[in-house]
Amino acid sequence: MPTIFSRIVNGEIPCYKIAEDDRYFAFLDISPLKKGHTLVIPKAEVDYLFDMDEESYSGLFLFARKVAAAIQKAIPCTKVGVAVIGLEVPHCHIHLVPLHNVSDLNFSNAKLMLDKTEMEAIAEKIKASF
Amino acid sequence: MPTIFSRIVNGEIPCYKIAEDDRYFAFLDISPLKKGHTLVIPKAEVDYLFDMDEESYSGLFLFARKVAAAIQKAIPCTKVGVAVIGLEVPHCHIHLVPLHNVSDLNFSNAKLMLDKTEMEAIAEKIKASF
Repeated sequence: MPTIFSRIVNGEIPCYKIAEDDRYFAFLDISPLKKGHTLVIPKAEVDYLFDMDEESYSGLFLFARKVAAAIQKAIPCTKVGVAVIGLEVPHCHIHLVPLHNVSDLNFSNAKLMLDKTEMEAIAEKIKASF
Repeated sequence: MPTIFSRIVNGEIPCYKIAEDDRYFAFLDISPLKKGHTLVIPKAEVDYLFDMDEESYSGLFLFARKVAAAIQKAIPCTKVGVAVIGLEVPHCHIHLVPLHNVSDLNFSNAKLMLDKTEMEAIAEKIKASF
């Protein structure tokens, strides 16, 4: 059974897409820690980041780097933080989170509730910053 | 003035070293979230991860991958999590944290206080797992 992220990639589940190429995909986290919180995934299903082959792993981080640069331009923040946890969805994903404070990367924080209009506006702004 | 991490690399400040090559260095976080919490850094001082040139950035993550594999062998955990925050020490560093739960990567958690003997034993165990 495909993961929820594969279903997003395949268009079965809608998302606020940020970027994609033939191997990687980036979209807004639907329960963001901060505005602009983005997930970057490989299209091929791999559960654990460090089980990816070396070339795909490097490709994922290089793709994430481009996305982070766009987030940094679009969303006011000090830095874009990175987290990979991987204990919930069995499809590896890099969280990119615009940070002002160390505590902004705390996944126990209450998630933001943003409406569709706001999420679309954030996605458009990041997409325009590539 | 060199960063505290450059002073660790240069041996001016002691550390529990895990691994190094000519460009990268890994050592135990002195205030670990979990036993085996390791920092991976480039020897060259760069503040922001995404300011690294593409080749050095990829090299850093490939080095971290080897370290993560050794941690995974040495320390009981479900996965090794990844975090890059970068708002405190202006020398970019990847946190590798052995995880059982999502909340294990919460930097607001109380840090473990481990004595020298225990830190040395953890470092030895990880080093023996490469």
